[in-house]
Amino acid sequence: MTSGGTDVLPPLIDHHTHSVVIADLTPDAFRSLLTESDRAPVADPFDSALGLAVRRWCPPALGLSEHATADAYLSRRRALGPAEATKRLLGAAGLSTLLVDTGLVAAAGHPLLPLPELSALAGAPVHQVVRLESVAERLAARAPAAADWSAALTEALTAELAGALAVKSVLAYRHGLDIPAERPSPAEVIEAAGRFLVDQPARLTDQVLLRQLLWTAVDLCAERRPALPIQFHTGFGDPDLTLHRADPALLTPFIRAVEPTGVPLVLLHCYPYHRQAGYLAQVFPHVYADTGLTLNHVGPRATTVLGELLELAPFGKVLASTDGYGLPELHLAGAAQFHHAVADLTWQWRRAGACTAVDGERLALLLAEENARELYHLP
Amino acid sequence: MTSGGTDVLPPLIDHHTHSVVIADLTPDAFRSLLTESDRAPVADPFDSALGLAVRRWCPPALGLSEHATADAYLSRRRALGPAEATKRLLGAAGLSTLLVDTGLVAAAGHPLLPLPELSALAGAPVHQVVRLESVAERLAARAPAAADWSAALTEALTAELAGALAVKSVLAYRHGLDIPAERPSPAEVIEAAGRFLVDQPARLTDQVLLRQLLWTAVDLCAERRPALPIQFHTGFGDPDLTLHRADPALLTPFIRAVEPTGVPLVLLHCYPYHRQAGYLAQVFPHVYADTGLTLNHVGPRATTVLGELLELAPFGKVLASTDGYGLPELHLAGAAQFHHAVADLTWQWRRAGACTAVDGERLALLLAEENARELYHLP
Amino acid sequence: MTSGGTDVLPPLIDHHTHSVVIADLTPDAFRSLLTESDRAPVADPFDSALGLAVRRWCPPALGLSEHATADAYLSRRRALGPAEATKRLLGAAGLSTLLVDTGLVAAAGHPLLPLPELSALAGAPVHQVVRLESVAERLAARAPAAADWSAALTEALTAELAGALAVKSVLAYRHGLDIPAERPSPAEVIEAAGRFLVDQPARLTDQVLLRQLLWTAVDLCAERRPALPIQFHTGFGDPDLTLHRADPALLTPFIRAVEPTGVPLVLLHCYPYHRQAGYLAQVFPHVYADTGLTLNHVGPRATTVLGELLELAPFGKVLASTDGYGLPELHLAGAAQFHHAVADLTWQWRRAGACTAVDGERLALLLAEENARELYHLP
Repeated sequence: MTSGGTDVLPPLIDHHTHSVVIADLTPDAFRSLLTESDRAPVADPFDSALGLAVRRWCPPALGLSEHATADAYLSRRRALGPAEATKRLLGAAGLSTLLVDTGLVAAAGHPLLPLPELSALAGAPVHQVVRLESVAERLAARAPAAADWSAALTEALTAELAGALAVKSVLAYRHGLDIPAERPSPAEVIEAAGRFLVDQPARLTDQVLLRQLLWTAVDLCAERRPALPIQFHTGFGDPDLTLHRADPALLTPFIRAVEPTGVPLVLLHCYPYHRQAGYLAQVFPHVYADTGLTLNHVGPRATTVLGELLELAPFGKVLASTDGYGLPELHLAGAAQFHHAVADLTWQWRRAGACTAVDGERLALLLAEENARELYHLP
Repeated sequence: MTSGGTDVLPPLIDHHTHSVVIADLTPDAFRSLLTESDRAPVADPFDSALGLAVRRWCPPALGLSEHATADAYLSRRRALGPAEATKRLLGAAGLSTLLVDTGLVAAAGHPLLPLPELSALAGAPVHQVVRLESVAERLAARAPAAADWSAALTEALTAELAGALAVKSVLAYRHGLDIPAERPSPAEVIEAAGRFLVDQPARLTDQVLLRQLLWTAVDLCAERRPALPIQFHTGFGDPDLTLHRADPALLTPFIRAVEPTGVPLVLLHCYPYHRQAGYLAQVFPHVYADTGLTLNHVGPRATTVLGELLELAPFGKVLASTDGYGLPELHLAGAAQFHHAVADLTWQWRRAGACTAVDGERLALLLAEENARELYHLP
Repeated sequence: MTSGGTDVLPPLIDHHTHSVVIADLTPDAFRSLLTESDRAPVADPFDSALGLAVRRWCPPALGLSEHATADAYLSRRRALGPAEATKRLLGAAGLSTLLVDTGLVAAAGHPLLPLPELSALAGAPVHQVVRLESVAERLAARAPAAADWSAALTEALTAELAGALAVKSVLAYRHGLDIPAERPSPAEVIEAAGRFLVDQPARLTDQVLLRQLLWTAVDLCAERRPALPIQFHTGFGDPDLTLHRADPALLTPFIRAVEPTGVPLVLLHCYPYHRQAGYLAQVFPHVYADTGLTLNHVGPRATTVLGELLELAPFGKVLASTDGYGLPELHLAGAAQFHHAVADLTWQWRRAGACTAVDGERLALLLAEENARELYHLP
């Protein structure tokens, strides 16, 4: 990480990420992708924990020193050109497999790179994660009859799942995780689908249809042998989310209802409710927790936040991801933050006499690759 | 703690714990007692913060080195036999007094040891804590008339309290802490008791009867001079609890309603809402907070979590417990985690110039013994 | 800070504080001002994180050594007399500007010092922050007609705002932050005002009038160019507050509704929901977060708690305050806690390779002065 981008991080299965844009981003556009907000920032996003992480881990990949200033970094990036910069940044990230949520298609007004090209730049296989709400919204655009909604949704989702390793729900954005656990009745679904198909809103926010969508996904994921995992956005995200309604503990009734099906549920990001996620991963066999977006955004605090997740979460139930989106800097910094946090945490534990070197290495390996390999049945 | 179990920890009044089983546990049964889940684990419970704590503190008591592997430890335990292992583990824990919640009677299918035998093995006096909901459930089995429920409950609870130092509520499991603060009316109680006595469910979950039970306990505890404390399970526990409904802040209206009676309320465990518990202990004179289950489960993170509790909690309002249950390893590791966390925290504070050695020693003494001695009026 | 009160801390714009009492406080009265509780303490408030902070930072200002005992400190304070002690303590705090919430008028039964005298003792300009609920309560005492309530409130608030730099809401105490975001209708306001004016309660707790008050403030603050900020008490405080209803995330619907007006909203104190506040400051351009009461109360834990706030909060959106009230010790300890926490945190980050010295200095300057100077348009 220190000599001109020639070093590459250790392997990491990035089980939840997005694609990147290859474009000459203005400084403002670059900065806008360093925050979860979709508003114009009033304070420089580089003056943040995430900004420090990007300036720590990314400049060496472009031939600058760690902690180069934001201006020096953006200037160098422009000089190299976005294709070369992206190749170097993704290459340095050392991702061994990427699971990409394809629900987002653009960033800062530029299209996201198609998966085959992302795979080539990252030098690693890329698999798809199907965003549930996008499937329903695309289906609505085809205007089926309300009475056919359930069957059409099952058909559409079945087709999408063919090549996917997981599905993802953004219920936290569309309603909040505080939903009744029960399947809606067929009559409720037809009535709600009728409203939805008439109104044709850009986004699906109807609670009945969101639940129907989830249960359809549960059924289809359970049919697969082994069962396909469902990822849930939980915790912080962009401002159309109401934070306290994204606490994963709110999902407990649904978690209980899904348990008999054997479908794994993966709680993404989780912050600032990552301790709650760790608890759920301990007590429910089918629940997993992720470090996601969080370790990147909290910058110098990543070691502590990872430690908080591992207070209750079994080490065999925690997954790592970058949640990189738009900027390949987020993939590299995310991977570096993860590896650094694990190494720093286990070194602190060893120094304090709390574990052995072997324990620390085992923990790092579980989180970086083994847990994801087992959960998603990767080679 | 480092030489074959001959060392014993400093004294600790364990104000909330359970009894142990003396049985040749299979490795799976042993592991099942290392998690709050009642499901078969899909990830090895030894790969966890609690697992690290047990492997740190317990092997020396059985003549092994710290951090022995799980297999080596279980093998040694089997060779010694459960009686000898239990004697060594409980002996090394240095507990000076145990307050035992007798609401649980078995663990992993084996009966818990009766209190006199536990006392003999621990080498310390054992006192009883009466679990309120168990009293009501035993009473229901005797099928009184609904109209007699209140009087019969008062009578049954009065009898149970005779030899007890405290009562304990598991309202968090049975309903959640979000209850109306008011006493239910006599008519409401008779109606609810009627349903309960007809249905005879295994567990009391009716909100009206749970409140009636609490207020009966408040009345009886207030009659005692000095008043008897009521312990509340708060925060994480096994999976029939819904975590966000176990936030002790939800108990605020009830806390306010009880304040005039002078009955102390003790918030057990609290995690991940221990900062909330610290706040309640600061602003309400009759509220206390406990480190309980938490310091054991968070393993290498115990120092930090204890620090979080002490951010707002007055040092004179915090109690220590192991919440050991089934495995004597949990009593030893719980006690060791507590002593280590206090010593580590106060050493960090001294090194940072935040307190003196005298301050640190006073804090340790308050938490280990003095606060509990005063609250429970122990000799 | 180490030699008899001759050292003065670096500058700090204290953007949220109160005035002090100059009185020969009994030891009990002094202690009662070291806790957020208004009840007689059952445990010595000096045995707390805040007590450690006061004993660390204040004795040198009175010519004693750091960590003097509580008795030695109180004795020395009495010998110097309250005027001399207050002058020394406020002088050592190095406050460069004070924004004073004048909603409180007494502490421990003694009147708070008028602002000009506070300014003289602190050696710094003092500006007023208008407490909204106090304005409404004073207006009610003048008994306008219910139909005139809205107009009279607008007039009263306009007059109060003339010399103020900000307004402050204690909605968290009076109702909780979980209010509907919408303006109440004129008819609802007249009806609620009718009840309020008849009942004349000491405190305004009616949800309709609290919302009307907020929206009146939003309108008046938006009229000012640049717009005047509204401060919100969030997080812990004295016991008439219900903690979980003071989570700033609950304010999200109101935050969204205010966004188009451009009025800045400042989340005070925030603990234990400071991570939630950091998130809101990241995603909403008009939201700011404060370290307030928190860094003082958490004593030796201040570095960590500040770190938690800065995980998501942009460094350009965080403000510092002492929330000193009654005791000038709280102003000095609050300022010292802030400076120490920032210096300690940035030193830790530099040592871990997470930022440069320049980054650390910039962060300290933003929080101590620059962010507040910009937000409140100070010279």
